[in-house]
Amino acid sequence: MVFWNLATLELEEFRPGIMSRAEIGDDLIMVCMEIAPGKEDSGHKHVFDQCGIILEGQMELFIGKERKILKPGQAFFIPSGEHHGWKTFDSPVKVMDISPKQTCE
Amino acid sequence: MVFWNLATLELEEFRPGIMSRAEIGDDLIMVCMEIAPGKEDSGHKHVFDQCGIILEGQMELFIGKERKILKPGQAFFIPSGEHHGWKTFDSPVKVMDISPKQTCE
Repeated sequence: MVFWNLATLELEEFRPGIMSRAEIGDDLIMVCMEIAPGKEDSGHKHVFDQCGIILEGQMELFIGKERKILKPGQAFFIPSGEHHGWKTFDSPVKVMDISPKQTCE
Repeated sequence: MVFWNLATLELEEFRPGIMSRAEIGDDLIMVCMEIAPGKEDSGHKHVFDQCGIILEGQMELFIGKERKILKPGQAFFIPSGEHHGWKTFDSPVKVMDISPKQTCE
């Protein structure tokens, strides 16, 4: 389906504490995910850009040396190769996240 | 800047009736755009995926044979090669839109 209502979209368990639904095209992967409270990714990097928008809740995100608590209506862009990580607090966070399906290099 | 507050982000004229701001990485182009009332794209297609989310206002979008009026919190995914177009009504529409910077073919 090409249209999603993000408030009611049914998600499936992706890994413990993360429910998600993905639309995978030729070039892009669009993911809606809900992350449980108290989860953390202490940091990683990859050779592709990643971007998205917070839909519900709040999460801390760091990208390189910038660190910010993001709320609904705030977007992020993680440049290829940049070290980044995140954590959630005491409530779940819903995020729309987009990454390229493949890189050309 | 890697973090955007979409409610207050400053946009610049992209073309008449469309204000925008883009973040361009190695793989992705993330755009926040505000489209004026009464604008229309009667249809086009391109060889890359495109996706996004409605932030403010309402717009009609068709993708292939599916046509829908999209409201805030609704997302769309336009598969590569699919004919699509849109129109706005009597108020401006703010959209976050993501496309790949390049395709590998």
